[in-house]
Amino acid sequence: MMSPTPLLDQIESPDDLKRLTREQLPALAQELRDEIVRVCSLSGGHLASSLGATDLIVALHYVLNSPRDRILFDVGHQAYAHKFLTGRKDRMHTIKKEGGLSGFTKVSESPHDAITVGHASTSLANLLGMAVARDALGQDYQVAAVIGDGALTGGMALAALNTIGDSGKRMLIILNDNEMSISENVGAMAKFMRTLQVQRWFQEGEGAGKKAVSAISKPLANLMSRAKSSTRHFFDPASINPFAAMGVRYVGPVDGHNLQELVYLLERLNELDGPTILHVVTRKGKGLDYAEADPIKWHGPSKFDPETGSSDPSTSYSWSAAFGDAVTELSTQDPRNFVITPAMREGSGLVGYSKAHPNRYLDVGIAEDVAVTAAAGMALQGLRPIVAIYSTFLQRAYDQVLHDVAIENLPVIFAIDRGGIVGADGATHNGVFDLSYLRNIPNVQIGLPRNTSELRGMLREAQRIGGPVAIRYPRGNTDRVPAGTWPELRWGTWERLRAGDDVVVLAGGKALEYAERAVVDLPGVGLINARFVKPLDTAMLREVATSARALVTVEDNTVVGGFGSAVLEQLSAWGLQTPVRVLGIPDEFQEHASVERVHARSGIDTQAIRTVLAELGVDVPLGV
Amino acid sequence: MMSPTPLLDQIESPDDLKRLTREQLPALAQELRDEIVRVCSLSGGHLASSLGATDLIVALHYVLNSPRDRILFDVGHQAYAHKFLTGRKDRMHTIKKEGGLSGFTKVSESPHDAITVGHASTSLANLLGMAVARDALGQDYQVAAVIGDGALTGGMALAALNTIGDSGKRMLIILNDNEMSISENVGAMAKFMRTLQVQRWFQEGEGAGKKAVSAISKPLANLMSRAKSSTRHFFDPASINPFAAMGVRYVGPVDGHNLQELVYLLERLNELDGPTILHVVTRKGKGLDYAEADPIKWHGPSKFDPETGSSDPSTSYSWSAAFGDAVTELSTQDPRNFVITPAMREGSGLVGYSKAHPNRYLDVGIAEDVAVTAAAGMALQGLRPIVAIYSTFLQRAYDQVLHDVAIENLPVIFAIDRGGIVGADGATHNGVFDLSYLRNIPNVQIGLPRNTSELRGMLREAQRIGGPVAIRYPRGNTDRVPAGTWPELRWGTWERLRAGDDVVVLAGGKALEYAERAVVDLPGVGLINARFVKPLDTAMLREVATSARALVTVEDNTVVGGFGSAVLEQLSAWGLQTPVRVLGIPDEFQEHASVERVHARSGIDTQAIRTVLAELGVDVPLGV
Repeated sequence: MMSPTPLLDQIESPDDLKRLTREQLPALAQELRDEIVRVCSLSGGHLASSLGATDLIVALHYVLNSPRDRILFDVGHQAYAHKFLTGRKDRMHTIKKEGGLSGFTKVSESPHDAITVGHASTSLANLLGMAVARDALGQDYQVAAVIGDGALTGGMALAALNTIGDSGKRMLIILNDNEMSISENVGAMAKFMRTLQVQRWFQEGEGAGKKAVSAISKPLANLMSRAKSSTRHFFDPASINPFAAMGVRYVGPVDGHNLQELVYLLERLNELDGPTILHVVTRKGKGLDYAEADPIKWHGPSKFDPETGSSDPSTSYSWSAAFGDAVTELSTQDPRNFVITPAMREGSGLVGYSKAHPNRYLDVGIAEDVAVTAAAGMALQGLRPIVAIYSTFLQRAYDQVLHDVAIENLPVIFAIDRGGIVGADGATHNGVFDLSYLRNIPNVQIGLPRNTSELRGMLREAQRIGGPVAIRYPRGNTDRVPAGTWPELRWGTWERLRAGDDVVVLAGGKALEYAERAVVDLPGVGLINARFVKPLDTAMLREVATSARALVTVEDNTVVGGFGSAVLEQLSAWGLQTPVRVLGIPDEFQEHASVERVHARSGIDTQAIRTVLAELGVDVPLGV
Repeated sequence: MMSPTPLLDQIESPDDLKRLTREQLPALAQELRDEIVRVCSLSGGHLASSLGATDLIVALHYVLNSPRDRILFDVGHQAYAHKFLTGRKDRMHTIKKEGGLSGFTKVSESPHDAITVGHASTSLANLLGMAVARDALGQDYQVAAVIGDGALTGGMALAALNTIGDSGKRMLIILNDNEMSISENVGAMAKFMRTLQVQRWFQEGEGAGKKAVSAISKPLANLMSRAKSSTRHFFDPASINPFAAMGVRYVGPVDGHNLQELVYLLERLNELDGPTILHVVTRKGKGLDYAEADPIKWHGPSKFDPETGSSDPSTSYSWSAAFGDAVTELSTQDPRNFVITPAMREGSGLVGYSKAHPNRYLDVGIAEDVAVTAAAGMALQGLRPIVAIYSTFLQRAYDQVLHDVAIENLPVIFAIDRGGIVGADGATHNGVFDLSYLRNIPNVQIGLPRNTSELRGMLREAQRIGGPVAIRYPRGNTDRVPAGTWPELRWGTWERLRAGDDVVVLAGGKALEYAERAVVDLPGVGLINARFVKPLDTAMLREVATSARALVTVEDNTVVGGFGSAVLEQLSAWGLQTPVRVLGIPDEFQEHASVERVHARSGIDTQAIRTVLAELGVDVPLGV
C-alpha cells in the first residue's frame, strides 16, 4: 500500500525539502495538514493555528536555511508543521506528553527552534536582539519572525517594532493575520488590518484576490530589485499605514495559502536590507471544514474523531466555568462589577458573562498590563473591577499590580485561573510563581479556594473588603453548586479540618486534596485548610505552632517565597522554633507531563506527604 | 513691596484660575515657572519637564473642571504647576522631603491628583479604565491624560491606544512632545513625530509655525462643530498617521507654549465625542536658558543657583558611575559584551560606555520588557548582553526575565541600579522587591556587592559562569578604584568579616554598612558579608547555623520572600531550628524621606540592629 505521506516521507530536514519542486509544495502542505489533524485527533493539540500556518511554514523553510537562518514563532503553538519538517516527524505523536515533544518551540528540543516560547508578543524583541547580535559579531544570516495579528497588538511587540524600525537592520516579520488570537481579536489595530485587507485583495472575492496578487507581484519584484539599497518605503499599499510610520517596509496583504506566491515573494524579500513586514492572510483551521467554521472551538481540542470532528462530550465542570457562573450571578447583584480579560474570554469561562453583562465586560486584547491598569482606573472612578487572568500571564503585569493597584490599595479582584502546575503546556505555562510574586507586594491579599463554594464565598468577601485581592484556583475541574450559593466565609480565616496536635499539615487549594488523602488514617495528624496565604490566619497558626510537634506546609507553588515561607517568616517574627517542613514545587522549571505526574515528582502528592510524615516520626501504614 | 506672584496669589484652586482673563494666563504661567525654578533651586526637583509643561497645565485647568474632570499626568513628575494651582502652593517647598509633598502626583495627596504614579506609560490604560467607568456608571465628565512622546512609545501605552481607539469613548490625550524622555528619545515613533512636526509647522521657523496654528484653528473649529457626532478621522494632518490607524482622532502638532491657542483648541476638543489626541510641542526647561540648552542635565537637578545655574560640583562617585566604568573596561576585554538600556543612559552611568562602544550599545526607549527580551535574543546568538536597569523598572519585565531568559538559562547580566530604598522619589521608585521577585525565578543568581571592587569582581565572574545573573547595588555613592582592578571573587561565596559565634549577623550590600557599625564593639557577635542571595553560601551558612546561638539577617529589601526568607527556607530544609531574626523593609509601601530615615524607621539601621542584638541577650553598650 502506498504511504499516505509520500512527500513527507522524503523529508528529514529542511535540506530535503529544498529538493522538492515548487509544484510539489502544495501536496506536501496537504500531507502535513493531514498529519497534523491525525496527531491532534489522537490526544489533542494546537490544531487550528497549526493548520493555518502550514503553507507559510513550508514556504519559509523552502526559502530560508534553518538553523543558520533563524525562524522565530511567536507563542510557538502554530509550529507543528515546522516540527514535522525539522527532524521530529517520528516523535510528533509524543507532543505535550511526558518525555515527548513540547507543544511549543523550545531551544533545547531542536537546533531549528530559535526561541523557547509560550507567551505571546515576545518574538519581535527576540528578533531585534538576534539581528543586533548578528551584525555586532559580523555574521551573515537571516532572522525571521512569524507573529499573529493578535500577538502583534501586544504592547511589547509594538514597542519592539519602534526600535526595529529605527535600527534599519535586516530582518523579516511575517504578520500571520488570521483575524484572531485564541478569541476573536479586538482593538483598533485589528480593525485597521481588516481595512487593509478589504481595500486591497478581497473586495472582489478570493478569486480576484489571488489574481491581484499575481498581477502585482511581478512589478513588485522589479521594483524591489531596483530599490534594494535605497528608500525603505517603496511599497506601502495604503497611504495610512502605521508600519511605514514605524520605519518598517510593508508588503501585503497576500494570500497565505498560495504557496507559489509565498515562495516567490519570500525569495525576493529575503534579499533586501532593512526590516520588512510581509502581511499574510491565513485561515485558522485551514483545510478542515469544521475547524474553519469554528476556529475558537478548535484552537486546542482534546482528542476527537478526525472524520466527523466529534469528541466525547465533556460532563465535567471546570474551575473556569465555576468562576464564570459565580461572577455572572454576583454582577447581577452589584452594578459596580466589571470584568476585564486580556483576550481570554473562552479560557477564563467568560462567554456567558460577556452575554449577560455586555456593558460591563472589556477585552483589551493580549495586553495583560493594560488589563490591570485599566482596572485601576475603573476602581479609582467607582467600579469594582475583576481581572480574569491566567497565573502565568499575570506575571506580565507584576509591576502594574504593584504600582497601579497596590500602592493606593485599590479594590481590584484578580481571578487567577491555572494557578499551580498546568501539565501538558509545560514550563512556560505553569502558574507556580504567583503566591511568591504576589505575596511580596504590600496590600495584596491572596485566597486559595478548595471548591466552588469557597470560590464564591471568597469572591463575595473580596468585594466587601475592598483592596487588591487575588483569588487563585487551578486548571481542572471542581464541583457544581446551585445558583444562589453564597456561603459565609470570614475573610482571612483558616479552617481546621481535622484535630490532632502531633504533626499538623497546612495546605490550601489543590494541595489540600492531596493532604486530605494523606492524613485520612493518621490519628495524631492535624489538618488545616490554609485557604488564605495572605493574610495568614495568625490566631490559628500561633495556636498550632505552639501546640504541635512539627508543621508541614504543602503548596502547588514554588518553595521559594511562597506559602511555606510565609509560615517560616511568621514563626521567625514570633521567635518560635517549631520545626516546619515546606513542600512545594522545587526551584526548577518543570517540564510538561500530566499535572499529577508533576506533583508526584515535585513531592507534593499524597504519597510524598505521607513519606514526609513518616520521616517526622508519624506512624504511617504502608501501601495506602 | 509688590508680591513677585500677584496672579498666583489669587489662586487657591482651579476655580480661582477661571476668574483670570485669557490675556492674564501667560503672565500667570511665567509666575509659575519662576516659582518652579525657585522651589527646585532650593532642594532640587523635576525642573526641566515641569517648566516645559507649565503652559499646557495652565490651559488644561483653565478649560477643564478638576477634580470632577480627571487630569492624568503620565509619570507624574512634570506636574509641579498642577500642584501649585490645586491648593498646594504653600507646601511646594516641602516637595520630596519627609512628610512633604510627593515629587509625583498622588491620589492620597489631593483630590486633583487622578492617579498615583512614578513609572511611565501607565496613563493611557488608566484613562481607558476611567472613561469606561464613567460610561458604565452613566456619569458625565471629561478624562484627559498628558503623556510625553517618550512614554507614548512604551508598549503599554501603545497597547492601551489600541483599545482606546476601538472603544470610541470620549477622552483627551495630550501628547506632550518635547523630543525627549529623560535621555533623548530613540526609535521610529520619535522620528515619525519629528516628521509630523517638520512637515506641518516648523519648516519655516517658529514664527511661521505660530501663524500656521492660528490660520488653521478657525477652520478646524468649524469642521469640528459640524463633525461632532460623525466620522472620527476628519482632521488627520498627515496621510501617514498611526494614530488615525488606531482609530483615534489626531489634532496637531500645535505650539505648546501658545496659551491662547491651547485654550482655544482645548475648549473645542473638550466638546467632542470619542478619543482625541492633541499633539503639543513643548520645550523642556522652557524659559530658563541654561535648562533649555541642556535639558538632560536639568531633568532633576540638586539644589542650584537659579541666576547662574551653577551648583556645587559633585566630587562623589556614584554606584552608577562605578558600574559604567567597570562595564566599559570589561567590554574592551570581551568583544561579546553588549549593553542595553531602557532610556536610562545618564541615570545608569552609560554615557562613557555609549561613546567607547557605540556599536555594542542599544537604547530601546522606555520599554523594559523589550530590553530584557532583546537581551535574550542576543544571548541566543552568541553575545553576552548586560541589561542596565533600575530595580523598580525591572519590575516591568518580571515575566521577560522568567519566560525569555531564565527558562533557557541564558547568559544575561542584569546590572540593577537603585536597589533598595531610594529616598526622595518614594513608594513608586523604591527598589525593595527585587530580591524577592528575582529569587523565586529558577536559574537566576543574585549578587549584592558591598563596594566597587566587589561589583567588578561579580561582573567578571558573572560573565565567566554564564546564566542569568542579577548584580544589585543601591542609589548613592561608593569608592573609586584604579582602572584595571579585577579582584578575584569566588562565585557564590560569602565572606566572614568578623569571628564570633554567639550571635552572627548576615548582611549584604548597603545593609552590610549598618551591620558593620552595629557590631564593631560587640566581641561575641560574628559578621558575614552575605554577598550572594542566590545561591546562598550553604557551607558557611550551615557552619554558623549549627554553631551560633542565633542568626540575624539584615537586608534593604522587603521582609517578604527576600534574603531572610532564603535563610529560613534553607534552615527548614536542613531541619535546623536555630533562631533567626529577619530585619528588612516592612511589608508596607514606604513614603519618601531620606534613605537613612527610611532605613531607620524600617528598623534596619545601625541602631535598630543593636536593639535586636540586645533583645537576643547580647551585652550592647548604650549610646554608641
